[in-house]
Amino acid sequence: MDDVARAFVPGHVTGFFTVERDEDPTRTGSTGAGVTLTDGVTVEVRPAAETTIRLNGEDVEMGAVERVLDALSVRATVEGETPLPLGAGFGVSGAMALGTALAANELFETALSENELVTVAHGAEVQAGTGLGDVVAQARGGVPIRLEPGGPHHGKLDAVPARGRIEYVSFGGLDTGEVIEGDVEHLDRPGEEALSEVVRKPTVEQVLYASRRFAREVGLLTEDVRAAIRDVSDDGGEASMAMLGDTVFALGTGLSDAGYDPEVTGIHPGGATLR
Amino acid sequence: MDDVARAFVPGHVTGFFTVERDEDPTRTGSTGAGVTLTDGVTVEVRPAAETTIRLNGEDVEMGAVERVLDALSVRATVEGETPLPLGAGFGVSGAMALGTALAANELFETALSENELVTVAHGAEVQAGTGLGDVVAQARGGVPIRLEPGGPHHGKLDAVPARGRIEYVSFGGLDTGEVIEGDVEHLDRPGEEALSEVVRKPTVEQVLYASRRFAREVGLLTEDVRAAIRDVSDDGGEASMAMLGDTVFALGTGLSDAGYDPEVTGIHPGGATLR
Repeated sequence: MDDVARAFVPGHVTGFFTVERDEDPTRTGSTGAGVTLTDGVTVEVRPAAETTIRLNGEDVEMGAVERVLDALSVRATVEGETPLPLGAGFGVSGAMALGTALAANELFETALSENELVTVAHGAEVQAGTGLGDVVAQARGGVPIRLEPGGPHHGKLDAVPARGRIEYVSFGGLDTGEVIEGDVEHLDRPGEEALSEVVRKPTVEQVLYASRRFAREVGLLTEDVRAAIRDVSDDGGEASMAMLGDTVFALGTGLSDAGYDPEVTGIHPGGATLR
Repeated sequence: MDDVARAFVPGHVTGFFTVERDEDPTRTGSTGAGVTLTDGVTVEVRPAAETTIRLNGEDVEMGAVERVLDALSVRATVEGETPLPLGAGFGVSGAMALGTALAANELFETALSENELVTVAHGAEVQAGTGLGDVVAQARGGVPIRLEPGGPHHGKLDAVPARGRIEYVSFGGLDTGEVIEGDVEHLDRPGEEALSEVVRKPTVEQVLYASRRFAREVGLLTEDVRAAIRDVSDDGGEASMAMLGDTVFALGTGLSDAGYDPEVTGIHPGGATLR
């Protein structure tokens, strides 16, 4: 056994979604669409007598990561490094879960397939209540469309073929668990309409347009995000809100053109991978 | 409309396969497994009054590429650049078809999704008789396992989570069309057994082991490839034959350790993408 294994998982911002619950966590998930980001999470896994989880050098509690290690029947030190803020809608917990699954499988030679590892990470994230669609999107990369909810054995993905620069500004966090564990039926119609619009015309501009409509209709926009989207639109750009964070993201130079000082990344061309 | 759009598609060597025919080309395909390669094909597409196809600067006939452009109702100059030999089992024709689909969709703003573009390229390759499984494997990247045949709407993929160096030596070409259009029933049992072995233990070493068994059983080994596989095995390495080419590929430094002077590439971490 090697001393360490590494994986990289892209960040992921969801633009719109619906929540689909089932008794089976691998059938639970979300439909919707979003953008995976080259700003992501690098996960290192080392064998250990007791499990420890660190993110950017600080000890953290991450139920999804613990569940992944339990599912593989291993204990490990898991260290994540990322430029992305936690709890701001970038799928950091999903990335930690999926990166842990890939790296631990390599390190401990558990010989699971990619679909099996994505299933483990997706189920762990669902059971931990920290996300519903990030893991499958991060496994695919690009601009994933979640047509049917759930892990790889039940869900169905497509994607928008697109590359390019993405900018984002994060004003703070929102509690994903609070929203997705609460009353979510009012998301269904706006989420399904947004999905239809993207399926009809799978371009990244359409994803942003459908996401803006969704964010307005479901009443999740924060004041800062609402103002930033308006500023970018006034300047002819395309921006929307990262679900679920107090975060705005834009295509190209949308935010800097509008006078913001954004972080700069890009649409990530591939999915999660061993490093 | 821009002047040019570019896509990159990884190379792909198949280790073992079965042929599955259907009246519908999007249901036709192959099961099996292989390795996608960072040595791939970069495809540039430009608008043109008449379609021209070039590979490494030379005019070529490529039925799959013509069919892709026809399906999108466009005419273009398509230029492929690759370090890979043509007709030697690296999926160059599939890469040209898929790269053309991605780049032409971008250039001509035909607004198809990734699954739709992969379907178009897969169907074109099947109808041209130049391949059955490369396109869907190249769209996924990594070490794809083709569990069920066909394009994205009908086929089913998994993958072995693996990275690492790959070496190859090509002794010449084999005519894919001649093999896959001929009597292929004798491939079924060895192909299905190899697939079971990889599903049971999805590691890249197992893919090579199952591929070697398959290549021996179906009688497709050339003398040069047989000798190279034996030399690599004698040295403790893992090698097999690229289906369908007079080509041997090996994990890590298998071929150079055995005294060969191979080309060096790696398992490609992602699938085909716009550049």
